[in-house]
Amino acid sequence: MATMTPRTLSGFMELLPKPQQQMERMMEILRRTYALYGFTPLDTPVIEAAEVLLAKGGGETEKQIYRFQKGDADLALRFDLTVPLAKYVALHYNDLSFPFRRYQIGKVYRGERAQRGRFREFYQADIDIIGDGRLSITNEAEIPAIIYKTFSTLGLRRFQIRVNNRKILNGFYAMLGLTEKSGDVMRTVDKLDKIGPEKVKSILVEDVGVSPAAADEVLSFIAIGGGNQAVLAALEGYQSRSAVFDEGLEELRTVVKYLSAFGVPEENFAVDLTIARGLDYYTGTVYETTLLDHPEIGSVCSGGRYDNLAEYYTEKQLPGVGISIGLTRLFYVLGEQGLLNPDLPTAPADVLILPMTEDLSAAIALATQLRENGIRTQLHCEEKKFKQKISYADKLGIPYVIFLGEDEIAGGVVACKDMATGEQTKLEPAATIYRIKAGLAERETGTVILEK
Amino acid sequence: MATMTPRTLSGFMELLPKPQQQMERMMEILRRTYALYGFTPLDTPVIEAAEVLLAKGGGETEKQIYRFQKGDADLALRFDLTVPLAKYVALHYNDLSFPFRRYQIGKVYRGERAQRGRFREFYQADIDIIGDGRLSITNEAEIPAIIYKTFSTLGLRRFQIRVNNRKILNGFYAMLGLTEKSGDVMRTVDKLDKIGPEKVKSILVEDVGVSPAAADEVLSFIAIGGGNQAVLAALEGYQSRSAVFDEGLEELRTVVKYLSAFGVPEENFAVDLTIARGLDYYTGTVYETTLLDHPEIGSVCSGGRYDNLAEYYTEKQLPGVGISIGLTRLFYVLGEQGLLNPDLPTAPADVLILPMTEDLSAAIALATQLRENGIRTQLHCEEKKFKQKISYADKLGIPYVIFLGEDEIAGGVVACKDMATGEQTKLEPAATIYRIKAGLAERETGTVILEK
Repeated sequence: MATMTPRTLSGFMELLPKPQQQMERMMEILRRTYALYGFTPLDTPVIEAAEVLLAKGGGETEKQIYRFQKGDADLALRFDLTVPLAKYVALHYNDLSFPFRRYQIGKVYRGERAQRGRFREFYQADIDIIGDGRLSITNEAEIPAIIYKTFSTLGLRRFQIRVNNRKILNGFYAMLGLTEKSGDVMRTVDKLDKIGPEKVKSILVEDVGVSPAAADEVLSFIAIGGGNQAVLAALEGYQSRSAVFDEGLEELRTVVKYLSAFGVPEENFAVDLTIARGLDYYTGTVYETTLLDHPEIGSVCSGGRYDNLAEYYTEKQLPGVGISIGLTRLFYVLGEQGLLNPDLPTAPADVLILPMTEDLSAAIALATQLRENGIRTQLHCEEKKFKQKISYADKLGIPYVIFLGEDEIAGGVVACKDMATGEQTKLEPAATIYRIKAGLAERETGTVILEK
Repeated sequence: MATMTPRTLSGFMELLPKPQQQMERMMEILRRTYALYGFTPLDTPVIEAAEVLLAKGGGETEKQIYRFQKGDADLALRFDLTVPLAKYVALHYNDLSFPFRRYQIGKVYRGERAQRGRFREFYQADIDIIGDGRLSITNEAEIPAIIYKTFSTLGLRRFQIRVNNRKILNGFYAMLGLTEKSGDVMRTVDKLDKIGPEKVKSILVEDVGVSPAAADEVLSFIAIGGGNQAVLAALEGYQSRSAVFDEGLEELRTVVKYLSAFGVPEENFAVDLTIARGLDYYTGTVYETTLLDHPEIGSVCSGGRYDNLAEYYTEKQLPGVGISIGLTRLFYVLGEQGLLNPDLPTAPADVLILPMTEDLSAAIALATQLRENGIRTQLHCEEKKFKQKISYADKLGIPYVIFLGEDEIAGGVVACKDMATGEQTKLEPAATIYRIKAGLAERETGTVILEK
């Protein structure tokens, strides 16, 4: 009767139960961490009117978008969570209180060419703080704290939040008379790591049309390094030549100043003048986050400050700051790199009960008692051999197996086997529950990500 | 610069922050309850190959489905979570252990005619237990326990899980020689509540072609009532005339027998011979759940036992039992009926800190300390009047506001106002945290649903 071979589309992640449990843990950590910083959860439709999603227009987006007709309606699937946020804030403006802090973890769609590690359906996990008319720089200082808390709670230690300020870049290029060319200059400078300073200079001079002297200035500017205080000190040398530059430097100082109060260790943060972020709409602080042992992955959490979230939908000026984690890709990469902790429980249940009597009432009552105590419990009442049932628990990684026969029921005890140690106890239900809970708590102490 | 009026498509739920928080609570309860019974979370793509989703074919489905081309690919959005499960189990059969217990909470899509309370994008929250070749009846007895736990944890008390068995119905109709007509008969009987027994009989006789005597038998059969034990006793009168009937009765007896051990109170459960569930593929126990004070809503949680989950994708026989909650519609109806508890916190934060000093370091350090203690904290550093900031906390329902001025910093204390009582304390940070946590715990004691 089978009529077709089942398949899942390429570019669409579909996880087996164990990795799915790890993914769920990551999502739960993101939800809890974002909430800890006062962000409210939001959920918007996956489908929107195509003209709403494409209000801004733009080439790549339009090519990749999933767009289709249903009846007379011209529909499309969201390709990020920022455009739906802009629509949401403009639409519900009168019902919101500003600053409006929201997080959203949801699937987005881009019909990219399928290739390994690239997904057409993927989760983004975004936070944004939206002001009404204006927004304090403090919010820009708080973002690295949220990134730090998120990644350290996931278990990472060797990561770096790299920060720059677009006003510093814009002011600097204005000083050199390169404002018109700043886009091309920044794109060229972005290749520094890959092609080296000599090649960058030759492209700047020959292709972009920058004078050799200005190109040298650009190269020495982006070479500024040596720690946050050293970078800030070096930037002081450029002060008082551009109002925009000075403003950017003041903002950067504020961001750096409040870091330690926000709990961000120095080694996880770096002012980095090479960070620009491609998107045009960033206007202040910009962020990238890299794993120190895996620079090839690129930024795993990026974002920045923008002046006008919803200019296509409203006349109101709505400045904001936000970051986005490409969760599906991050999860994929962590798996590829072997960084997902294999020791955290991924079983569907904490306890598997094997009833050894024909009447199941006692086994069911025990399952009910365990569940009332918050222990995830499965009854295994299938007609299988004992050995098969043990092997089932083993395969799924269920940590405890309980046997309940006539003797145990008569004695008011429960036989419970710790599958990791093989140790078996015969205790009253309450004592068994206590032992299981202690064991589970111990197993839960690890983090999702485990660096080597 | 605004170029278009923002809008959300009709038939697509988009909640404001407060109701969204209530929805999140409901989802979290579903996740936790399903997990407690040993179900593992699953996530499958929203988009599938159209031919995969439509393997079964069928009129209504095909009309309502969102289907579109992308390049050469013929794609469609899932319209339920059962077909993707069937595909998943068939595709990953070798990597799964059976019985396979999964829950999935996800959006599905149906292009229904838009009308109040009908959604084109909506959440389903499903659980299913899939066996390999066979599956114990115990699983069918466990399902009402899961429904009971789910709804009672949400806060409902006045609901009833109504259960029947398709084998009893099929056996009964076989006794009357109505097997061929059983579909039409059941559809007619389904209208009993609306049109009354006289009208049902006349349709059965005139339109369906049932003899008047058989129609009377049908009516007296579905009139059997008077409590679970009385129904079981009445059914015994039909025994030994159909093997299928006898099997169904034995199954129903088992389901009823284990209910109390599973912790389901009698008043929340009823054997109801009028329940049939339209779908053809149910073959054993079937479930519906109604709110006693709101019968007009219909069933809020339905499902049943089926013999062949994935017959379109595999030759393997995969029997299962499952239920589905139409979460978006349930949430909408609960809101309409005023059953959502307005007293549960829906604020984005537990504490709003208002720094009263120019240097924000102390306020930021306090926010960090609160967050390290699990308290959801927002710093309000915008240039607004004090009164506006208080009104912001008030509007959002943030329960505590902390003021931190020079005096407090110098004295090592924190001024904290309980927004509900107006009570203000000046205590050390640790004591403030203790007080806030106690207050939050008290506020969390309610349930999401509050019956009147």
